[in-house]
Amino acid sequence: MSYRHNMQLTPERKLRHFLSIEGLPRALLMEILDTAETFAQVGERAMKKVPLLRGKTIVNLFFEDSTRTRTTFELAAKRLSADVLNLNVKTSATSKGESLLDTLRNLEAMQSDMFVVRHQQSGAAHFIARHAAPHVSVINAGDGCHAHPTQAMLDMFTIRRHFGQFAQLTVAIVGDILHSRVARSQIHALTTLGTNEVRVIAPKTLIPKDIEQLGVHVYHDLDEGLREVDVVIMLRLQKERMSGAFLPSENEYYAAYGLTQARAARLKPEAIVMHPGPINRGVEIASSVADGERSVILEQVTHGIAVRMAVMSLCMGSHHATQEAEA
Amino acid sequence: MSYRHNMQLTPERKLRHFLSIEGLPRALLMEILDTAETFAQVGERAMKKVPLLRGKTIVNLFFEDSTRTRTTFELAAKRLSADVLNLNVKTSATSKGESLLDTLRNLEAMQSDMFVVRHQQSGAAHFIARHAAPHVSVINAGDGCHAHPTQAMLDMFTIRRHFGQFAQLTVAIVGDILHSRVARSQIHALTTLGTNEVRVIAPKTLIPKDIEQLGVHVYHDLDEGLREVDVVIMLRLQKERMSGAFLPSENEYYAAYGLTQARAARLKPEAIVMHPGPINRGVEIASSVADGERSVILEQVTHGIAVRMAVMSLCMGSHHATQEAEA
Amino acid sequence: MSYRHNMQLTPERKLRHFLSIEGLPRALLMEILDTAETFAQVGERAMKKVPLLRGKTIVNLFFEDSTRTRTTFELAAKRLSADVLNLNVKTSATSKGESLLDTLRNLEAMQSDMFVVRHQQSGAAHFIARHAAPHVSVINAGDGCHAHPTQAMLDMFTIRRHFGQFAQLTVAIVGDILHSRVARSQIHALTTLGTNEVRVIAPKTLIPKDIEQLGVHVYHDLDEGLREVDVVIMLRLQKERMSGAFLPSENEYYAAYGLTQARAARLKPEAIVMHPGPINRGVEIASSVADGERSVILEQVTHGIAVRMAVMSLCMGSHHATQEAEA
Repeated sequence: MSYRHNMQLTPERKLRHFLSIEGLPRALLMEILDTAETFAQVGERAMKKVPLLRGKTIVNLFFEDSTRTRTTFELAAKRLSADVLNLNVKTSATSKGESLLDTLRNLEAMQSDMFVVRHQQSGAAHFIARHAAPHVSVINAGDGCHAHPTQAMLDMFTIRRHFGQFAQLTVAIVGDILHSRVARSQIHALTTLGTNEVRVIAPKTLIPKDIEQLGVHVYHDLDEGLREVDVVIMLRLQKERMSGAFLPSENEYYAAYGLTQARAARLKPEAIVMHPGPINRGVEIASSVADGERSVILEQVTHGIAVRMAVMSLCMGSHHATQEAEA
Repeated sequence: MSYRHNMQLTPERKLRHFLSIEGLPRALLMEILDTAETFAQVGERAMKKVPLLRGKTIVNLFFEDSTRTRTTFELAAKRLSADVLNLNVKTSATSKGESLLDTLRNLEAMQSDMFVVRHQQSGAAHFIARHAAPHVSVINAGDGCHAHPTQAMLDMFTIRRHFGQFAQLTVAIVGDILHSRVARSQIHALTTLGTNEVRVIAPKTLIPKDIEQLGVHVYHDLDEGLREVDVVIMLRLQKERMSGAFLPSENEYYAAYGLTQARAARLKPEAIVMHPGPINRGVEIASSVADGERSVILEQVTHGIAVRMAVMSLCMGSHHATQEAEA
Repeated sequence: MSYRHNMQLTPERKLRHFLSIEGLPRALLMEILDTAETFAQVGERAMKKVPLLRGKTIVNLFFEDSTRTRTTFELAAKRLSADVLNLNVKTSATSKGESLLDTLRNLEAMQSDMFVVRHQQSGAAHFIARHAAPHVSVINAGDGCHAHPTQAMLDMFTIRRHFGQFAQLTVAIVGDILHSRVARSQIHALTTLGTNEVRVIAPKTLIPKDIEQLGVHVYHDLDEGLREVDVVIMLRLQKERMSGAFLPSENEYYAAYGLTQARAARLKPEAIVMHPGPINRGVEIASSVADGERSVILEQVTHGIAVRMAVMSLCMGSHHATQEAEA
């Protein structure tokens, strides 16, 4: 597995691709957060645009639909002044029977600089990065149940803005840990950044075996797990899981694992509530909590643009510097 | 109803949203026309772009398909150097069960500056404006049978370019007044701008009750209604009305309410013929009239870009000025 | 037919539209290649953008799906800093029953400067150019079985980059000549540029009658036809031809007309292999040949951007100069 972790880095240990949090050094995660801080200020200006990636071509290569994630990457790219190409690969390139690698080779030949990849299969972004030309960076915008690293980093950015540090925090992730690429990336980010305690809270059927090896504490009781936490991250419940053997009814789930008004009221005064969106009101979280004072859900969306701008500019900067050094 | 009218204006009575013509003061309509005049000149230059909205994000939020209207708003935004995001909300955001308000909150959190809204339900743009964040302007690109104010203003622009004034004009609107958001907005614009006489001409089944209260004269006979008019505005006949109880056959409609060559020939020499498009040739208007000397239909399309640029830049200018004053 | 050829040229014999290679003078083809050479250098820079068409509006008017061709035109336009509008006309404009000419008139009224047209019917781009307003240029991005002139010019560009001349070359085009707009445009380009010998190689059912009149030599035996060639251009086999009377099975076709490893090995040492893409591996070309040392298939894709930038800027430059002279 180690080649996977290192392929994200240049020999100088700068970001070349951004595929998963796993294996990235703490200093690099801090560099992403620090860079995002400068872009967050750009977003607050009347003129929300910088010429950093002007003349670059960024391809949104979406094998799985996601208007929201595509939109945030598109906005991030445009605010960096890059040219953006949206390709819904599901419906287009392979309709003439062309292979994935031929599609990639063609986009590379068009002098694309970056692929933002969303795919329903775990490992797809790594596969594409492994076969990418030297002048192309790959950013994972979510692959199967594996990873969603920009989501995790925007969550870290939001936590740092509120608490300024990770070392004294207890963070709980609640919901379908088993199928969540978001949770997996969050756990790696939180532990790498030195979070005091990371908890995962879910019914047994929704917790992967051996997850303690990632350095987390497992709780099956929500009220117990929420005691003394500083950050609660609620995961979206994929309703399609309901039909299977994983879950009881929506009502029973809400009673046992929903962040109700009563539960939110028992949190520490300064605790914040997060959610990657889109939220299912009344399924995993009460409407009043999602819209309440503790909720930082919309801040997460705002920070998502800044963090994606940071990751894009760092990837582009590093590998171009490398190419010049080699030339 | 009065809060609706005022919510379009800042305390300084500048344009904050553009939702309907109803309730807007004459001076403001004139300001839109004057501003559009400067943008019309931009469109005639080899370099059809100004940096006015550079760094702004404009979202085309279309709940109802309309390639033509979306295209004109997209071009208007690009010629103002804004970044444009096209969202077909019908197929995307709500597919994961997210509510309209959650979609809006997310787009606002992405620091969008303006929503251009098209919706099949009357009142949708007002609803969105009422719930919009302070930094967002809303432009109504057509809501149900209610209003289509940018269409009305491009029509006013076209009339003013030809006659220079409204006070001595007689304007007739012909066709399905009952279901037409275009007609409703045109009537408000024409009366606010002090048009001498506004006529609506249609069969009884296609005229709303009490429409005289808007200050128009009703005619059921086309030949009578067209006497001495300076401007004829033909409405598009929605063919789906044919199947209901509203209308006789297409041929009978054309005979009674179509702008035939013979009828066009009897108009005053300087009279002009308008149509919001797309036209049904041989249904509500003869091909030879649509393409003839009196027709200003394509001028309307050209003016549509300039008027939309004017409305966008006025909304953006006013509410940003307000925000700065508050800051 | 002669009006067709001349309608591509201004009175000063500059490029006004780009519809087919047929009838274009050699000097003009050379000017396209020379201009593309400068744009190829732009593509190799870190900043792949020039402000040449800033403020211009280019409409991709695609009546037939083609993600790849649309993408290359979109990138070419964006790298020239133009604003691009993508219209999938199949699904949009005509859904309200509007005629093609009305759609064109409307896009012209929006002050579009250029239409890039792809259509399933031969002659569609000529038809549109014949009816276009004076301020609009039309570029044929493929019409039926007729022409695909930008594809032919990127092929010429690739050949010239490898050999520096055409006068001493033997070029073979292999495959479904009968239905190929690419082959037709390539033949005209090669003969106009003074290629020593142009061969077409295909079964009798896939060769148009009287093709020798275009100045080519016909071969039905691939091994014989490939002797002493400098350039082999393999055409994509449209699999839908298989079901008809034109062709035997895929395997038989590959045995008789596929560019196998063995056949490629018998080519002259400096010979190159081309393909317009997307390739059918193992149908018309062996995978090892497509990815092998002789293959310049991906270079063709890269050159496609530069050639399209050249054609766009030449068309735009010439007819604007003409318009100014007339003004």
